[in-house]
Amino acid sequence: MITMLQTAERLRNGLTTPDQLIESALAAAKGSEHVFISVLEQRAINDAKASTGRWYRGAQLSPFDGIPYAVKDLLDVAGSRTTAGSITRADAPMAVEDAAVIAALSALGMIPLGKTNLTEFAYSGLGLNPHFGTPTSDVAVDESRVPGGSSSGSAIAVQRGIVSSAIGTDTAGSIRIPAAFNGLVGYKASTDRYGLAGVHPLAVTLDSLGPFAHTVADCVALDAAMRGFKVAAVTPVNLAGLRFVVDDGVISDPELQPAVQQNLLSMMALLSAAGAQVERRPVVAVARTRELIARTGWLGAIEAWRFLAPVVEGPQGPRMDRRVQARLRSVKGIDPAVEARIRSRRRELMAAIELELNGAILVMPTVKHVAPPMEPLRSDDALFAAVNLETLSLTMIGSLLDMPGVAIPSGKDSVGLSTSTLFSTTQGRDDQLLSACLAIEATLRAADLRT
Amino acid sequence: MITMLQTAERLRNGLTTPDQLIESALAAAKGSEHVFISVLEQRAINDAKASTGRWYRGAQLSPFDGIPYAVKDLLDVAGSRTTAGSITRADAPMAVEDAAVIAALSALGMIPLGKTNLTEFAYSGLGLNPHFGTPTSDVAVDESRVPGGSSSGSAIAVQRGIVSSAIGTDTAGSIRIPAAFNGLVGYKASTDRYGLAGVHPLAVTLDSLGPFAHTVADCVALDAAMRGFKVAAVTPVNLAGLRFVVDDGVISDPELQPAVQQNLLSMMALLSAAGAQVERRPVVAVARTRELIARTGWLGAIEAWRFLAPVVEGPQGPRMDRRVQARLRSVKGIDPAVEARIRSRRRELMAAIELELNGAILVMPTVKHVAPPMEPLRSDDALFAAVNLETLSLTMIGSLLDMPGVAIPSGKDSVGLSTSTLFSTTQGRDDQLLSACLAIEATLRAADLRT
Repeated sequence: MITMLQTAERLRNGLTTPDQLIESALAAAKGSEHVFISVLEQRAINDAKASTGRWYRGAQLSPFDGIPYAVKDLLDVAGSRTTAGSITRADAPMAVEDAAVIAALSALGMIPLGKTNLTEFAYSGLGLNPHFGTPTSDVAVDESRVPGGSSSGSAIAVQRGIVSSAIGTDTAGSIRIPAAFNGLVGYKASTDRYGLAGVHPLAVTLDSLGPFAHTVADCVALDAAMRGFKVAAVTPVNLAGLRFVVDDGVISDPELQPAVQQNLLSMMALLSAAGAQVERRPVVAVARTRELIARTGWLGAIEAWRFLAPVVEGPQGPRMDRRVQARLRSVKGIDPAVEARIRSRRRELMAAIELELNGAILVMPTVKHVAPPMEPLRSDDALFAAVNLETLSLTMIGSLLDMPGVAIPSGKDSVGLSTSTLFSTTQGRDDQLLSACLAIEATLRAADLRT
Repeated sequence: MITMLQTAERLRNGLTTPDQLIESALAAAKGSEHVFISVLEQRAINDAKASTGRWYRGAQLSPFDGIPYAVKDLLDVAGSRTTAGSITRADAPMAVEDAAVIAALSALGMIPLGKTNLTEFAYSGLGLNPHFGTPTSDVAVDESRVPGGSSSGSAIAVQRGIVSSAIGTDTAGSIRIPAAFNGLVGYKASTDRYGLAGVHPLAVTLDSLGPFAHTVADCVALDAAMRGFKVAAVTPVNLAGLRFVVDDGVISDPELQPAVQQNLLSMMALLSAAGAQVERRPVVAVARTRELIARTGWLGAIEAWRFLAPVVEGPQGPRMDRRVQARLRSVKGIDPAVEARIRSRRRELMAAIELELNGAILVMPTVKHVAPPMEPLRSDDALFAAVNLETLSLTMIGSLLDMPGVAIPSGKDSVGLSTSTLFSTTQGRDDQLLSACLAIEATLRAADLRT
């Protein structure tokens, strides 16, 4: 797989042109089922032509001028329809303006190739979509696996090498989970790191954005680009200065698949051998957060219901994915006092985890299991609901506490499916997290863990 | 003026009924120009009838069942149009669902009397509206004064005694400023204290909600009610345990009107005499925040432009208030890297003020001046722009750092116009702030400062 930074290097050395990049990306996009809801062919060709001209004149807007990327179809791109993965938006008006992060990438010359598939209204962690089909990876295994969601198409577009990077959104795990299932790096930022203008809302307190890529270094470059910087200010730190806390309450969970646990522990042993301080202990605030979600309810569901109730209960409602509908309806009529308790408990837990981690980086698996087989989930709604909750269970913690997180591939299981480790810091410490993950990546590469 | 808690007491003792409350509130609403954009007469009459029946049967939903309140026309109330104060939304579809906080108040039986006037799209601190007229207080002074904005109608509805309380929104000062200009208590919550579903967005990172009332005690009851609680969990603390920091950098500003400064210092002397620990010193994080806003730009403007650009630049654009348009356009084409710098600097400043205050409550004037005369501002756009910025200058600090704030009347100037003091804590410490303000109110009342 070629990374975005490698592509930038090839452009700089004249080994490729934006025209060529777009031509092959468009061909790959057309050859891949269900990955894109719409391909922005004409815009991409025009943008590539302009970009190629700029490189020719030495007037490129940035090192990434002319590089294509994919965008989850929950973000506006001017002139295209934002479907949010829902059949109910088939007649929605065309977006008149690019979302804020898309505009920032355009200012650096990057080219949105197409709008990627997702779970309807971004509301599940598995990635199935009955309206637009479900994209799948090209990893050869016994049976077809779910892509993970909700940013399914963004992850698969990168996994299949159609583009080197993609933009997703994450409200409960929607970047981190598909990154985990597909051997990618996925970065979910703190909610206020990027402007959310032009992003179709799901749950406004928890909605966040971020990139998918093959490397942390690409994610760091994309993070800077999404904020309008040509050069990233984040640089790797010395691993020896870093403190990691592996949450014993999570890693000792008997429900973890052995490969998930084993690969995480091997990864941390490597980091420890390279000088990082790695501690394994229960993190009380994490346990309390899981209890709050399990016993009191999911704030994301409450906020999503408020926003989507008019759709679910309107004339278009019956056309929706019944699994998305059912999960949305489950919080209908909830006592507002329950929401208030969640909000105030959430604040306490955010303060508690800040104190408990005290600058350390939280480590847990991104998902308890590898990507599950798709077929049984299609027909059995009860199984779907149970697996979906299991899949989301770890990433929801960071979402509720607004913790930025980076999912990094930790290895494979016995049949070759990816496992993933999630590194998280507390709200707003995105730069610290990304710096640390650059150091982790450098160490892992040196150890050749990741081929 | 009768407060909400006093009205609840009268209901409890059978001295009034919801029918009577609504009848007189509707009569007062009809007699007051420009306060409401729409009065929800039929719903109010129906709700009052049902509520009166519940009280008769002893089945009231809460102590506030049947009490009317006003709602800024930026929040959805099912069956009415949310104009956001803009002529461009004259044909917007009717809201199909109540905003989250309205639904919470309805669950306790409270009755939305009408949708109140505001600056177009909630985008200025003075409250002028050329489309729907500008509401004014009934305080008799030399010449008509601005109501403050953007929640102009909500403040005036309470000031004129049409309702005992009202809901506003605050992105840069839109609750705190009109509360200050009209001798009211106004509470701007941390952004994530309430669900924002059904609230027309302005700047998603900064948008927050809160109540207007005559007393802190009413605001505390409303805060609980907006979150679905019948009884507030917030109770007054002992003033002797409280630490206040009066920002010397602000209070020593030669631009402060003398009455504003003097009334604040008298108020703090009283609190100090009652046992509070009051310190006067420069707050570095506040000074740095003001510099950031002045030199780098206003995040609220950048986010608002992204959201409103399609309106401003669309076919309806020319119909907008030219002053709102001009201020919105001022950030058009801003470098995304500038926005990124603001976001990351904002995070640093939030951490810095948390450390610097170390649990103390920040004290400054809510606005540097009393309500300015309206007439000169109508005709002179340059004067309007300058006064608007001055008016917003202190409340913007807390907005950018997501600090909850309570504006409390501090007295009057020589002609009888209200001055106000703003008490603020850091993000998420709303309960602490409200507890402290209950203690402040009790002390001030005992000292008879506030008649």
